[in-house]
Amino acid sequence: MANALLTDLYQLTMGQCYFNENKHNQMAYFDAFFRRIPDSGGYAVAGGLSKIVDYIQHFRFEESDIAYLKSLSKFSNDYLNYLKQLTFSCDISAVPDGTVVFAGEPILTVRGPLLQAQLIETALLLYLNHSTLIATKASRICQAAKGKAVMEFGARQAHGEYAATEGALYAYIGGCVGTSCVQTGKKYGIPVLGTMSHSFVQSHENEYEAFKQFAEIFPDNCIFVVDTVDTLKSGLPNAIRVHHEILQPQGKSLKGVRLDSGDLAVLSKQARKMLDDAGLPQVQLVVSNALDEFSIERLLSQGAPIDVLGVGENLITAQSSPVLGGVYKMCAVEENGTIVPKIKISDQPAKITTPGFKKVYRTVDPATGLFAGDKIAFHDEAAETGWKELHVSVFSQGKLVYALPSVKETKDYCTAQKAALSEDTKKLKDPKPYPVTLSPKLSELKQKMLGKA
Amino acid sequence: MANALLTDLYQLTMGQCYFNENKHNQMAYFDAFFRRIPDSGGYAVAGGLSKIVDYIQHFRFEESDIAYLKSLSKFSNDYLNYLKQLTFSCDISAVPDGTVVFAGEPILTVRGPLLQAQLIETALLLYLNHSTLIATKASRICQAAKGKAVMEFGARQAHGEYAATEGALYAYIGGCVGTSCVQTGKKYGIPVLGTMSHSFVQSHENEYEAFKQFAEIFPDNCIFVVDTVDTLKSGLPNAIRVHHEILQPQGKSLKGVRLDSGDLAVLSKQARKMLDDAGLPQVQLVVSNALDEFSIERLLSQGAPIDVLGVGENLITAQSSPVLGGVYKMCAVEENGTIVPKIKISDQPAKITTPGFKKVYRTVDPATGLFAGDKIAFHDEAAETGWKELHVSVFSQGKLVYALPSVKETKDYCTAQKAALSEDTKKLKDPKPYPVTLSPKLSELKQKMLGKA
Repeated sequence: MANALLTDLYQLTMGQCYFNENKHNQMAYFDAFFRRIPDSGGYAVAGGLSKIVDYIQHFRFEESDIAYLKSLSKFSNDYLNYLKQLTFSCDISAVPDGTVVFAGEPILTVRGPLLQAQLIETALLLYLNHSTLIATKASRICQAAKGKAVMEFGARQAHGEYAATEGALYAYIGGCVGTSCVQTGKKYGIPVLGTMSHSFVQSHENEYEAFKQFAEIFPDNCIFVVDTVDTLKSGLPNAIRVHHEILQPQGKSLKGVRLDSGDLAVLSKQARKMLDDAGLPQVQLVVSNALDEFSIERLLSQGAPIDVLGVGENLITAQSSPVLGGVYKMCAVEENGTIVPKIKISDQPAKITTPGFKKVYRTVDPATGLFAGDKIAFHDEAAETGWKELHVSVFSQGKLVYALPSVKETKDYCTAQKAALSEDTKKLKDPKPYPVTLSPKLSELKQKMLGKA
Repeated sequence: MANALLTDLYQLTMGQCYFNENKHNQMAYFDAFFRRIPDSGGYAVAGGLSKIVDYIQHFRFEESDIAYLKSLSKFSNDYLNYLKQLTFSCDISAVPDGTVVFAGEPILTVRGPLLQAQLIETALLLYLNHSTLIATKASRICQAAKGKAVMEFGARQAHGEYAATEGALYAYIGGCVGTSCVQTGKKYGIPVLGTMSHSFVQSHENEYEAFKQFAEIFPDNCIFVVDTVDTLKSGLPNAIRVHHEILQPQGKSLKGVRLDSGDLAVLSKQARKMLDDAGLPQVQLVVSNALDEFSIERLLSQGAPIDVLGVGENLITAQSSPVLGGVYKMCAVEENGTIVPKIKISDQPAKITTPGFKKVYRTVDPATGLFAGDKIAFHDEAAETGWKELHVSVFSQGKLVYALPSVKETKDYCTAQKAALSEDTKKLKDPKPYPVTLSPKLSELKQKMLGKA
């Protein structure tokens, strides 16, 4: 499906100017980066590249798009004819999905004709921002869960279909064991998970009857939601009774119970005791109810004997910090074959950009095997020994030159990336800042350009 | 496109149980409602019905969906064959998009075969939650702007494509004058708007050159972004110069300048003075930079002479309260032709539901013309004089019986709805709670069922 209208109007307006000025094919350089890490965290997990590859491969204006643009009476026929036949021809490099990244460093760089590089800004940012936000949030939540399984359950509270289905994908990449969203499971082959809802209990004569029916149909997969009436007085006793009456005689076991309301720290301890007293130490405690990394950390620090966590709205919307704020800034143009660095000064120091066509490098501490720092340098500075380039080439003159890894490969890569990050940098609160520096040459140019302005 | 897999796995699991128990066609009743208004506001603006109509009209399982479900080895062949031929046959009633609604009252009610009513839960909530969230946020922001035009500029920070394009639609319905998102403009015929970006300035020799080129191409529509170098020392003087050199000689005028960083209250006053001193009182001040209802209220209370506002990430993600939290709860089932009310108790009082098949009514104070209160009653209680039913019938036995209003009609209806809401209830902070009550009969039943449990 053509998608070139997934853009802001001003991109097309500026495009008309570039076209009239005959500078639409001037080579330009743009960096995408974010200025601060969500939730004041120490790292982010890059996402969105798989979406961008798909978007770019379908980038074109179709007849009806051109007809619509014509109807706005803003654009010249020559320009619209030009857009109609436009074929994407930029270079794009980016960090692979699942890479840990930091504020201020380019996570994607575009080099290409000014008009094209401008038209794709909105969609590129949209994909990067959303996917990175969700992968990062999932990573934080899974970190708080300290290895316990986290299931993504948020579809119903997501910001629309795409946020539900593709958010679940990046939640999985960021660390979740699976999702409740069946569409996502079908599309990406990732595990689909779930228990039962309160309405299932309500639709039966009573709670016992509901659990009994479920156990007879799914004896191998019984996780009962136990708070429809009263967790400790009704839910747990009925779950235990159904285990003894229906499952045990078949040599099977209740798999888990889900606590979904009330004080989960208190209830989980009492539920654990009841299950253990009933000779059911193998039955898992699944908890849900507006969980995020902060509440999970609190629950575990209070000694809540939780085995599995279901996380909904706070993951799928990144509730506590729902805007990544990634931007896409011009860093250079070519003039007569020379790369001329560009800077944006702004009235806010935080909004000042780093000029020049750049590369990003990362080094590993050989003693610990941990990432020791990132460096941003001019694209043509010689790489120092021990520093490895972070970006891969994704499109070259418009052609896809990158073999997208599978979802599983991306998830494994992300796990390895996080393992190479120091615990101090991964702390949920007050993490140790990870060093990202400019090369001396780049730093010098930036200071010079700032001084001049 | 088939879409029945846009659901949570547990809906299908429970469906298998209902199928085996031969209760999949038992008539059930579900209400969708939210428990608290975002941002502790006094009202919400209902949205999502247009999306739900589209979803339901395409509701079906296709071959590949069934094949995927089969591959999970969870479901019986009989059940999967049943799903394959399933045709939607529920009744759905709901408040029209744009209606002002309040916590605890059903905004959508489903009556239909248990299995179907359960399968659609996830998608129904997803559409209601997202659209209501954005329409409500837009309404709050426009209210803070006190009649000044608010443009929706958030696509790049939205949670994916759908959130960008359909969020812009509901932002427009909620009060914005238009959107930067071209896709949305094309799809819904709503105004597309925009100015210019910093990269446009950067891609020229200097700021003056950039403004000049733009003015030559779009003399009727010049809104220059003035903070690329320095708002007051460079941006404003260059904008004024281009007005005098290029626009004025043609009998045209600079339309506006956009301030996008720094202290907008201070800068807008100084910019206004510079423009007025240059004989340009007609030039509008457009401001942007992470605005929301709170910062807009602050700016205006500081006397910032702003004419137009561009709002991005904080609207399109509902940043300060990004989860509506709408739920879908069983309220009754039919047994032998009788409607049997159902309640969910839970360990949290806030999560207790209101039982029974219900209707929602609203009354108007004849003296003021303002909404005076909503009442929830049993569906078969006689409506009292002066109370009007809020829901419209949308689907009857699976057939669409509602003529969706146009986008423009919905926007106008929403404006009228808000005009009928008291100022006290519309306050951004500490609004006066709007009265939503239960009929005496309904209240009595709820107490009785609570007492019994």
